[in-house]
Amino acid sequence: MSNSIVTLAKTAFKDFQQGLATGEWEPFLERLTDDFTFWFPVGSYQGENVGKAKAKEFFNYVSQTAFPQGLSVTINRITNSENTVVFELKSEGELFSHPYINQVAISFDFRGDHICGYREYLGILYQIKPQA
Amino acid sequence: MSNSIVTLAKTAFKDFQQGLATGEWEPFLERLTDDFTFWFPVGSYQGENVGKAKAKEFFNYVSQTAFPQGLSVTINRITNSENTVVFELKSEGELFSHPYINQVAISFDFRGDHICGYREYLGILYQIKPQA
Repeated sequence: MSNSIVTLAKTAFKDFQQGLATGEWEPFLERLTDDFTFWFPVGSYQGENVGKAKAKEFFNYVSQTAFPQGLSVTINRITNSENTVVFELKSEGELFSHPYINQVAISFDFRGDHICGYREYLGILYQIKPQA
Repeated sequence: MSNSIVTLAKTAFKDFQQGLATGEWEPFLERLTDDFTFWFPVGSYQGENVGKAKAKEFFNYVSQTAFPQGLSVTINRITNSENTVVFELKSEGELFSHPYINQVAISFDFRGDHICGYREYLGILYQIKPQA
């Protein structure tokens, strides 16, 4: 069981990576439950957010506004329990046209083969500069 | 094997909790390898730090300077791989005399029954105010 959740999470993570890189979020969004909740540390989505519609809005914001050139992520480590998989990763791109690099931990909670929860933790604190 | 690393990590975590609550770090420090490395997101220890001596300095700084009243942590979730255990937790206390609350992910890497690596990720970004 432990192996199958990791396999499932890795497959879902590829769709997540593709979303970040290209802005095509549909394959990842299809993996979310309707009552999907996500927890984000900063900005207008700070704290807990509820619902797949809110998630769609958030991921489109990430791609269209924050990282229009795409964000590249590489996995450093994967750990898991029965229903949760944590990815420790490095992300790299341009945030609001400024060079951006971060170390991040992201948890996916699964219910069946769908993701019902997402929590993100940041490893490097950065200051978002206001846009010119 | 998976169970035993979680048991080991929970025991180590109690010493970590005690260190944060009371400033008594010796029991936790005894669990670290001499080449222990730790990765912290912010402040003068930002990035990777190497060595048990540096760790002792860091944890004493945390207790004596940052959280002299103690920091209380409660575990929300534990996930693990063969050698790594990730704790998602809530922390609460007074940082530099200001009310402080955070959601944090912390990874312990084990070599045998000792901790050789530590990485911390923050879930809420806060601004440290300069002391009056």
